[in-house]
Amino acid sequence: MAKRRFLDVLPLQEAQDKFFEALKLTSLSEEVIEVKGSLARVTAKPVRAEISSPHYDCSAMDGVVVKSCDTYNAVESCPMRLLLGKQARFIETGQPIPRGFDSVIMLEDIYQPKKGVIEITRPVALGQHVRSVGEDIVTGEILLRANHKIRPVDIGAMLAGGVSQVLVRRKPKALIIPTGNELVSPTKRPEVGQIIESNSYVLGSFILEWGGEFTRHAPVKNSFKEIKEVILQGARQYDVVIINAGSSAGQKDFVPSAIEEAGSLLVHGIAIMPGKPTALGTVKEKPVIGIPGYPVSAVIALDLFVKPLICKMLGIPLPKKKRKNAFISRKVSSGIGREEFLRVRLKRKDKGLIAEPLHRGAGVITSLVKADGIVRIPRLSEGVEAGQIVEVELWE
Amino acid sequence: MAKRRFLDVLPLQEAQDKFFEALKLTSLSEEVIEVKGSLARVTAKPVRAEISSPHYDCSAMDGVVVKSCDTYNAVESCPMRLLLGKQARFIETGQPIPRGFDSVIMLEDIYQPKKGVIEITRPVALGQHVRSVGEDIVTGEILLRANHKIRPVDIGAMLAGGVSQVLVRRKPKALIIPTGNELVSPTKRPEVGQIIESNSYVLGSFILEWGGEFTRHAPVKNSFKEIKEVILQGARQYDVVIINAGSSAGQKDFVPSAIEEAGSLLVHGIAIMPGKPTALGTVKEKPVIGIPGYPVSAVIALDLFVKPLICKMLGIPLPKKKRKNAFISRKVSSGIGREEFLRVRLKRKDKGLIAEPLHRGAGVITSLVKADGIVRIPRLSEGVEAGQIVEVELWE
Repeated sequence: MAKRRFLDVLPLQEAQDKFFEALKLTSLSEEVIEVKGSLARVTAKPVRAEISSPHYDCSAMDGVVVKSCDTYNAVESCPMRLLLGKQARFIETGQPIPRGFDSVIMLEDIYQPKKGVIEITRPVALGQHVRSVGEDIVTGEILLRANHKIRPVDIGAMLAGGVSQVLVRRKPKALIIPTGNELVSPTKRPEVGQIIESNSYVLGSFILEWGGEFTRHAPVKNSFKEIKEVILQGARQYDVVIINAGSSAGQKDFVPSAIEEAGSLLVHGIAIMPGKPTALGTVKEKPVIGIPGYPVSAVIALDLFVKPLICKMLGIPLPKKKRKNAFISRKVSSGIGREEFLRVRLKRKDKGLIAEPLHRGAGVITSLVKADGIVRIPRLSEGVEAGQIVEVELWE
Repeated sequence: MAKRRFLDVLPLQEAQDKFFEALKLTSLSEEVIEVKGSLARVTAKPVRAEISSPHYDCSAMDGVVVKSCDTYNAVESCPMRLLLGKQARFIETGQPIPRGFDSVIMLEDIYQPKKGVIEITRPVALGQHVRSVGEDIVTGEILLRANHKIRPVDIGAMLAGGVSQVLVRRKPKALIIPTGNELVSPTKRPEVGQIIESNSYVLGSFILEWGGEFTRHAPVKNSFKEIKEVILQGARQYDVVIINAGSSAGQKDFVPSAIEEAGSLLVHGIAIMPGKPTALGTVKEKPVIGIPGYPVSAVIALDLFVKPLICKMLGIPLPKKKRKNAFISRKVSSGIGREEFLRVRLKRKDKGLIAEPLHRGAGVITSLVKADGIVRIPRLSEGVEAGQIVEVELWE
């Protein structure tokens, strides 16, 4: 039984370096969108205010607008009267300060002894309760830097600064191609030998969370010709092509050879567990990733190889995973020569945080559902002893 | 000049208690949706697996399936031969274990001296490289608890467990109504006296982030009759009604009286800064919130009064804000009698984390854009001294 071999099983860092360097990735092209719908998009250049805010001197509260120099003689013991209309005018929050006036007295601080007259008992500081032009935003000021993920308050600042459209990075588009003759749709009850195709939706949902978008290709039969064809087509239309399953070194694992024939296969086989049978290449200068079929392997390979791509294309740094130290609850032996991604559940106990190892099978998606995080057991380690302190990468 | 008064300026906690208790909120109604599109929705009841995964015993790798008892005599020094077809069969990852077989030898561990025969040098443990029914998921098992926010891996577990539809909470629907005669659309250049209406998009974007959805009402003129009408209509169709601006105690602040006439005004005036002129009430048993017009006040009031509502309606706990201690860079005096929400920017310096106070104006949206977090200066404090350690609530 002839079999393809792994190119060369590379340590993780080497595989990542080789792949990302070959890609010479720059940020994606840009598009102009409405600011009001720009939540969570990434700015492609600095955003400058087009108008000031406020764009005219206005009252900061409901009150009476006066000229401060008219009020200097007011004292508690000898209240001062101002004529309404001439020396004082009622004004509402946000209304422009009329020419010849400069300060506002809040309603609570005035007394109206009779119609047309107000009485004050304190002088008013120049500019009191006036919002001057540009108090918040000055025309031309940089509101947001480039490569900034837009938050709700940023939308407010842009709109207030007269910016109603913004240049953002296009969302990276991924094509996800499930492969395998045994796959059936999630709405069907699978028969013996059939498997529900679920990975594409998991991978796609991660890509949405990371700021990309995805198209799911209908499952492709396990045929070298069909797989190669769909990779070629995908590389023409998408920014990233992800082929799921068929990326190992078996006789019927056509993905590595298909990438090789369609473009260039850079890495096949990575010294990680789960995730070893990952294939990385380029086709028409687009990244093409053969992701293993086992669901845990698929998620880990996606996190290691696709997430950095998406961030790079968006021009944002790869978010750092939070880390916590914990005591591991039991001994875990791990083979030398591969980095293991051990799923653990965290429990707070008297003596501190305990990391409980979960099922290690690459086919056990529930190990990821139950996990609070992952302990990486290094490639050149034989495992961890019970009670040892381990670093847990939190997944969330 | 007649003016409405604040009902009674309540401390924050009292205002929240009074409002949330009056609402007797329960989680919202539910709806059935496709699992593949359920990312970030919240489960309304526990999700149980409908089938096991795997749902038949299958091979965990490409190899040869055998009966383990046939292999017990194999040793390195005296290899054992098995007849292909009868005692051994080639099998691929995921294929069912045929009747009469029980264990798998991986391809790397066999030798084929001639056609129809394989040679092994070690006995095989019963069940080796076989994924048994239910290894990952057992029919009837609880995959996700109720009130769980669905993540990508949860989608995988549900689909693998034969669940293609899931009962989730309906997304809370908010109506956001900007009010004011001076408002213009963000696409227009405002003239003196006009203000760009930006708050509704900021508030709406927060609601989207929290898992709700929003409809923006066209700006309503500052008329008691119109405001009351739109509140009544909104309370009929939406889960939350938010009216922006006009919630203070001025002569033309119609929102509090409109809520009072349309239903019941519970709170008007809260001892916080910014955010004092907030009005809380119910109309047709729906929460109605008069949010101040200044953008910072609006965001803070939304966070304090609407975010807990959305979480409650979704059946999820209010996410806790992360907190960090920092030295404040300068003295900040704050009036007794109100809790101040001071925006600060954090800087890492030699002696530790420094919190630099930003512009305190309620109208300065850029203070929120620049802020890393907020220092709450308690109601009965006069402020903080330079160098004092303060707790910063991180906003993100």
